[in-house]
Amino acid sequence: MLHVPTEVQTGLKLQQIVMIDQSNEIMTAVGTIKLAWQDPKLAFSPDECNCQVKEYTENNFNQFLTETGGDWPDFTFFNQQGNRWALNRVVDVLPDGSVTYLERFSTNFQLNFDFSQYPFDVEDFYIHADMLYPEDRYVMVPMEGFSAIDPQHGEDEFILTDFDTSVTSVIASRVYPTSRFTFHFGAPRYQVYYFFRIFVPVLLIILISYITFFLKDFTRRIEVATGNVLLFIAFSWSLAEDYPRMGYLTFVDVIMAITFMVNTLVVIYNVYLKWLETHEKRETADRIDRVADWVYPIGYVVLIGATIAYFF
Amino acid sequence: MLHVPTEVQTGLKLQQIVMIDQSNEIMTAVGTIKLAWQDPKLAFSPDECNCQVKEYTENNFNQFLTETGGDWPDFTFFNQQGNRWALNRVVDVLPDGSVTYLERFSTNFQLNFDFSQYPFDVEDFYIHADMLYPEDRYVMVPMEGFSAIDPQHGEDEFILTDFDTSVTSVIASRVYPTSRFTFHFGAPRYQVYYFFRIFVPVLLIILISYITFFLKDFTRRIEVATGNVLLFIAFSWSLAEDYPRMGYLTFVDVIMAITFMVNTLVVIYNVYLKWLETHEKRETADRIDRVADWVYPIGYVVLIGATIAYFF
Amino acid sequence: MLHVPTEVQTGLKLQQIVMIDQSNEIMTAVGTIKLAWQDPKLAFSPDECNCQVKEYTENNFNQFLTETGGDWPDFTFFNQQGNRWALNRVVDVLPDGSVTYLERFSTNFQLNFDFSQYPFDVEDFYIHADMLYPEDRYVMVPMEGFSAIDPQHGEDEFILTDFDTSVTSVIASRVYPTSRFTFHFGAPRYQVYYFFRIFVPVLLIILISYITFFLKDFTRRIEVATGNVLLFIAFSWSLAEDYPRMGYLTFVDVIMAITFMVNTLVVIYNVYLKWLETHEKRETADRIDRVADWVYPIGYVVLIGATIAYFF
Amino acid sequence: MLHVPTEVQTGLKLQQIVMIDQSNEIMTAVGTIKLAWQDPKLAFSPDECNCQVKEYTENNFNQFLTETGGDWPDFTFFNQQGNRWALNRVVDVLPDGSVTYLERFSTNFQLNFDFSQYPFDVEDFYIHADMLYPEDRYVMVPMEGFSAIDPQHGEDEFILTDFDTSVTSVIASRVYPTSRFTFHFGAPRYQVYYFFRIFVPVLLIILISYITFFLKDFTRRIEVATGNVLLFIAFSWSLAEDYPRMGYLTFVDVIMAITFMVNTLVVIYNVYLKWLETHEKRETADRIDRVADWVYPIGYVVLIGATIAYFF
Amino acid sequence: MLHVPTEVQTGLKLQQIVMIDQSNEIMTAVGTIKLAWQDPKLAFSPDECNCQVKEYTENNFNQFLTETGGDWPDFTFFNQQGNRWALNRVVDVLPDGSVTYLERFSTNFQLNFDFSQYPFDVEDFYIHADMLYPEDRYVMVPMEGFSAIDPQHGEDEFILTDFDTSVTSVIASRVYPTSRFTFHFGAPRYQVYYFFRIFVPVLLIILISYITFFLKDFTRRIEVATGNVLLFIAFSWSLAEDYPRMGYLTFVDVIMAITFMVNTLVVIYNVYLKWLETHEKRETADRIDRVADWVYPIGYVVLIGATIAYFF
Repeated sequence: MLHVPTEVQTGLKLQQIVMIDQSNEIMTAVGTIKLAWQDPKLAFSPDECNCQVKEYTENNFNQFLTETGGDWPDFTFFNQQGNRWALNRVVDVLPDGSVTYLERFSTNFQLNFDFSQYPFDVEDFYIHADMLYPEDRYVMVPMEGFSAIDPQHGEDEFILTDFDTSVTSVIASRVYPTSRFTFHFGAPRYQVYYFFRIFVPVLLIILISYITFFLKDFTRRIEVATGNVLLFIAFSWSLAEDYPRMGYLTFVDVIMAITFMVNTLVVIYNVYLKWLETHEKRETADRIDRVADWVYPIGYVVLIGATIAYFF
Repeated sequence: MLHVPTEVQTGLKLQQIVMIDQSNEIMTAVGTIKLAWQDPKLAFSPDECNCQVKEYTENNFNQFLTETGGDWPDFTFFNQQGNRWALNRVVDVLPDGSVTYLERFSTNFQLNFDFSQYPFDVEDFYIHADMLYPEDRYVMVPMEGFSAIDPQHGEDEFILTDFDTSVTSVIASRVYPTSRFTFHFGAPRYQVYYFFRIFVPVLLIILISYITFFLKDFTRRIEVATGNVLLFIAFSWSLAEDYPRMGYLTFVDVIMAITFMVNTLVVIYNVYLKWLETHEKRETADRIDRVADWVYPIGYVVLIGATIAYFF
Repeated sequence: MLHVPTEVQTGLKLQQIVMIDQSNEIMTAVGTIKLAWQDPKLAFSPDECNCQVKEYTENNFNQFLTETGGDWPDFTFFNQQGNRWALNRVVDVLPDGSVTYLERFSTNFQLNFDFSQYPFDVEDFYIHADMLYPEDRYVMVPMEGFSAIDPQHGEDEFILTDFDTSVTSVIASRVYPTSRFTFHFGAPRYQVYYFFRIFVPVLLIILISYITFFLKDFTRRIEVATGNVLLFIAFSWSLAEDYPRMGYLTFVDVIMAITFMVNTLVVIYNVYLKWLETHEKRETADRIDRVADWVYPIGYVVLIGATIAYFF
Repeated sequence: MLHVPTEVQTGLKLQQIVMIDQSNEIMTAVGTIKLAWQDPKLAFSPDECNCQVKEYTENNFNQFLTETGGDWPDFTFFNQQGNRWALNRVVDVLPDGSVTYLERFSTNFQLNFDFSQYPFDVEDFYIHADMLYPEDRYVMVPMEGFSAIDPQHGEDEFILTDFDTSVTSVIASRVYPTSRFTFHFGAPRYQVYYFFRIFVPVLLIILISYITFFLKDFTRRIEVATGNVLLFIAFSWSLAEDYPRMGYLTFVDVIMAITFMVNTLVVIYNVYLKWLETHEKRETADRIDRVADWVYPIGYVVLIGATIAYFF
Repeated sequence: MLHVPTEVQTGLKLQQIVMIDQSNEIMTAVGTIKLAWQDPKLAFSPDECNCQVKEYTENNFNQFLTETGGDWPDFTFFNQQGNRWALNRVVDVLPDGSVTYLERFSTNFQLNFDFSQYPFDVEDFYIHADMLYPEDRYVMVPMEGFSAIDPQHGEDEFILTDFDTSVTSVIASRVYPTSRFTFHFGAPRYQVYYFFRIFVPVLLIILISYITFFLKDFTRRIEVATGNVLLFIAFSWSLAEDYPRMGYLTFVDVIMAITFMVNTLVVIYNVYLKWLETHEKRETADRIDRVADWVYPIGYVVLIGATIAYFF
C-alpha cells in the first residue's frame, strides 16, 4: 500500500515573553500554534449534524481523539523544559475533512546564548515544534500569514523585530526522521541599561582616579587605586550573576580585567614613586610622573580599543 | 440558516491581588468572572426535575458540558501567563434556558508598564477575557452591576480606585474576530515609600556633602564627593532591581545620573582648588570657592527642576 | 414547596503554618475542615450493606457525589490564593442520613496586615470558608469542640494563643447571600528577635556616637555622624524588605527617620563648631558644646518618647 | 458483629533528603513506605488467573480499589505540608489474601527545630504516617527489617546515623483514635562549616582588635572597636537568616551579643583614656591600660565560658 | 510453569540540562528513554487492522495498558526527586509482538557531589532507571546505538564529553532484586570562571598587600592587612554559597584559610615592628623587616604548594 505523507501547514504566533532567565538560559513564553491538514476520514455531510463546521475544545477534545483514532499530527516542542500548559485548544473540522488545530500554550524553552559580546551580543531564540509521527506520515510546511511576534510581547530587555520560520527533517528523540518546524528570531539588547549601569559608573571611577594624578600625593593615590581594585572586583562579581558560569570571558569581563590590571599597575607604580620620595629622590619621581599623566589615559584607550577590535 | 449571535453578559470582580512582580511585569490575582446568556436548548420544565433551577458545580461540570454538547461561551484570558486554577465553578440554569456561569479563578496576568515617570508613574492594568468561539456565535456585552474591585484586594503598593470595562472585537489567536471583554484600571503608587526610602536619603546625602563646602579643607571634600559618587552608583543599582532592563531611563534614573555628574564635577573642582593651594594660590582658590557655595545648591535645583519639567 | 435550609455544623483545625510571607501578605497553612449535616436522602438500612457506616475516601469520592446527585454543602475558601491541595478527604454516612465530611487541606490564604505598629503590631489572621450554595439551601453553624489551633503549628515568629470562630451571611462572588464560616486569631510577635536585631544595634550605634562628644575633636565627630547617617539609611532599607511598599510609615520607620535627622543635625552642628574653631573661636565652640552633651541624649529620648506616644 | 482490627505491618525507607529549609522548617524528602496486611476477601485461586501473584501498579491501581471496595489501609502523612507525589505504587496480592503495598513518594514534612544550642544543636526529624480509618479497623505494627535510612540520602549538613520507629494511637484530624506510625531520627550538624565560617572569623577579629592594645594609640583603638561593633552586627544579621525569627536567642546569638557589648565597652574605655590623655593624664591612662591588657582577654574567656555553661 | 525473564533493551538520550542546583545537589534535565522488548501476546496480523504497526501516544496510552493487562516493563527513576513530567510517550507494536516504548521526560535527579577538590573537582552524574517488576520478569540490557548526550545539552558550567551505561541488579525500594539501568558521566568544570573570579582577585589582593612591605610605614601595613582579613572572610562567605554546608573543607576553603592566617600573622608582625619603633628600636625593626620581604612571598608559595600537594 503506497502511502503519501499528509502535509501539515504549521504556524506559530509568539504572544508573550513571560520571563527570560539568562543565567539558566530559559525563556518562558505564551504562544499559539496552528496546524492545518486534510483528513478524508473526517469528512462529513453538513446535513448529518446540521452544522457547517464541527468544533472541539478542551472540554470535548477526547471526542476528537476518538473520531481520529489517535491519528492526527500530534507534536511536541523539542526544546521545551518543563510542563506545557495548554491554555486552550480548538479543533475545527470542515465537511471536506480539512482540519485546523489551534493551541494556546504556556511553556519554557531552552536557549543557547553566546554571551561573548555581552552586553552588545545579538542572541538567537528558537522554538522547535517536532511531529511525533515519522515523515512518511506527516510532513510540516510553513503556513502563510499566521506566524508573528505580537507587538504586545512584553519583552523589555531585548529588541524583538524580525523572525523567520523553517521546516527541517531531524532525527531527535525518535529513530526515524520527523518533521521539525522552527520559529527563530535574533535580538540585540537595549543598550541604555548597560550604558547607564555599567559603562558610565566605570568611566566615572576611572576619571576620578585619573584626576588624583594631578595631586602630587603618592600615598593618596595608592589608597585610591587599591580601593578601585576592590571596587572593580565587586563590580565584576555582580556582573557575573547575569550569565552562567562559562568557559570563556565576555567583552565586559575583559574590560573589567583591564581595570583590575591597570589599577594594580598604578598601585605598584605609586609605591615606587613613594619609595623614591622616601629615599630623597622626589625630583626623579616628579619627572617620571609627568610622563604618567599622559601614559595612563592613552594606555586605557589603547587597551579598551584593542579589546573592542578583538570582540567585534 | 440565518444565525443571530448569542449575547453574553460579562462581568468581572477583582477580589485579591496576590502579587505584582514588577521586574517581570506579572500580576497574580484572584477574581470571579460571571457570564449570563440564554440557551433555548437548555430550557426545561420545573416539574420534570422537581426543581426551580438546575445547578452544576466543579464536581458535575462534565454533565453540563454533555447537556450543551460543548456549545457554551467558553473563554480564555488573553494576557494570562501560566495555568488558570479554577477555585470553583457554578452554573445555574433556569427553566427558561437562561444560564449563569460563575468562576472564581487564580491566575497571573501580563502587565505592560511604562516606568518612565517612576516612581510617580500611573500604571494601567488590563484583564482581557476572550471568547473562544467567533463573534457570529457569541458576542460579549458588559454586565451591569457585577464588575468591581473588592475593597479587600490587599494591594499595598498601588492606589486602586476606579476601573472600567469594555468589549471589543479582536483577531488574536484565531483567524476570525472574537469578542473581548476588558477589565481595566489605572493606578498611581503610594508616595510615602519612595519619599522616605529614596528622596529623603538622597537629599540628606547631598545636604551633608554641601555642608563640607563650609570646611575649607579641599582634601576632605574630595573624599566626601568620591564617596558620594560610589554611594549613588550603589543606590542606582539597587533601584534598578525594581524594574526590568529597559530601553529608556526613568525619572529616578535621571535624578541619580545628575547626582553622579554633580559629584564628579565636585571632585574635579576640588582637585583644581587643591592644585591651586599646593601651587601657593590659596587666595585664588578661596575667591573661586566663595562663588561655588552658591553655584552648587542652585545648580542642583536647576538640574532637578529641568528633569521634573521634562518628565511631567 | 416550602424549603427549610439544611444546617451545616462547621469546624476548622489549624494544624500547621507552613510559611508566612509578610511582604506579599500570604499565609500557607495545613488544616482540617469538618462539616456535619443531615441528609434524609442518604439514610440507609444497615442490613442492606451489612455495615454500620458508609465511608468514602479520596479514592471513591466520586461515588459519594453520584449518590448525592452533587447535592452536598460544597465550599470554597474565600481568601485562598492558589490551588487547594486536598491531602485527604473522608465522608462518613450513618444509617439515619447524618453525614460528616472531613478534609485535610494545604493552601495559602490572603492576609491583610496593618504594619503601622511594627514590630509591636498584633496582626489578625482570617480563614474564610464560604458555602457554594445559597443560604436558603445550606446555613453554616459553628461546630462545638472541633475548632482548634494545633500546639504543633510550627509558627515561630508570631505568638499564637487564642482564636474564635463565627458565621456570617455574605454576598461575595455570588449574587445571593451565602453562609461564611470564619476562623480568626490575633497574634503579636515575639519581641526577642526585634529587640536583639534592631533595637540593640541602633542603641549601641547611638551610644558610641554620643561618646565621641567627649572627644573634643570636631572633624572626627563629623565623620562618625556622617557614617551613621549612611548606616541608618542602609539599616532602614534592609528593614523595608520585611513588609510591602505601603502608604504609611511604621513605628520602626519613624524611629529610623529620627536617627537620620538627629545625625544630620549633628553633622551640621559640628561643621559649625569646626568653622568656629578655624575662625579662632574655639572657646565659643567649647561653651556651646558643653550644652550639647546634655541636649543630645535628652533630645533623642524626647523624640523617641513622642513617637511611642503617637503610635501606642 | 464482633470486629477484630486488621494488623498492618508498616515500614519506611528514607531514600533521599532533597532539601532542608531551616528558616521555614521544612524537609523535602523521597522515601518508600511499605504496608503489609491480610485481607481474606482478596484471596484467590492461582488457577483462576493462572498466576502466583496479582500485581497492581499506578496504571491499574483503580482496579485494586474496585476489588477492595475502597476497603484498604489508606494513610496520610500527618506532618506533610504540600502535595504528595506518588513516584510509583505497587500492590502485590498473594493467593492467601496477604497484600503488600509499596509506595515511593516525594513530599515535604514539617520540622519543629529547637535552635537554642545552634550550631551545636541536635535536631529531631519526624515522619508521621496516620491511618485514615479508625483503630478498630486497622492497627499499625512496625515492620521488621524494612525501615532504613539509605546511605545515599544525600544530606550534607546533618550527620544522619540512627533512627527509630514506633506506633502510637492519636486523635489528630479525626475524632476517633487512629494508628500512627512514626519514623524518627535525631541528627547533629557537621561542625566544620560553623567552625570555619563563624568561629574562626570571630576569633581572628577579636585577636586583631586585642593586638591593637599593644599600640598605645587610643584613637586607633576607638576606630577599630567601633568598626568591630558594626562588623559583628552585620555578622549577626547574616547569621539570623539561617533560622526563623524566634522567641529566644541561640547560643551563637549570645556569643554575638557578648562581642557587641565587649566592643562597646572597649570604645567607652578608650574614649576615657583619650580624655585622660588630652587632659594631660597620660601616665594614669598608661597605668590603667596595663591592667586592661589582661582583663580584656580574661573577660572574653569568662563570658564565653559562662555562655557555654549555660547552654550545654 | 518455568518462566524466562523478558529482556528489555534500554537506552537513554540526555537532551537538555535545565539547571544544576549545586547547593542542593539537584540536576533538572530533559531526556528520552527508550525500551524495546518482545511480547508474543501483543503480536497481531497486519490484515486485521490494515496497518504495519500499531502506534500509541499519550492520548491513547490507556488503550495500550488495557491490551497488555498492565503487563509491560514499567520503570521509575531511582534518584528522581520531584514529579516526572512525561513530555510525550509513544509506543510502537510490530506484528511480531516486538514493542518499542519511547518517553521524553523532564524531571530532577539527585546528585552526590564530592566538592573537596572544588573548583578543580570532576563530578559524577548518575541517572538510575529501575524496573518496577522483579528480575525474574524483566531484565534490562543496554541498547546499542541509542544512548547519547545531545551536543545541544545547554550546560555551560561543566564540560560534558563522555558517558557510559550499565545494568546492575539492585534491591532498592522493593524486597526482591530488580534490574537497574544506569546512565553515568563524569564532568570537570570550565576553569575560566574560577580563574577569573576567584584566583585573579585573590592574587591581586595578595600582591597589593605585599607591595606595601616596601613602604616602611607599619601603621599603613596594619591597616591593609586588617582590611584583607575582613575582605578574605567576606570572600570566603560568598564562595560558601556555591555548595552545601558540608563536613569537610574544599581546596578553595583551605586556600582562603591560609590567606586568613597569613594576614593575621602580618598584623601581629607589624604591631610588633611598630612597638619596636615606638620603643626607639627602629633599626631592629628595619633589620627584621628586610628578611620579611622574602619570607612573606616564599611562605605563601610554600603553603599553597603544600595545599595543592595535599588535595591533588
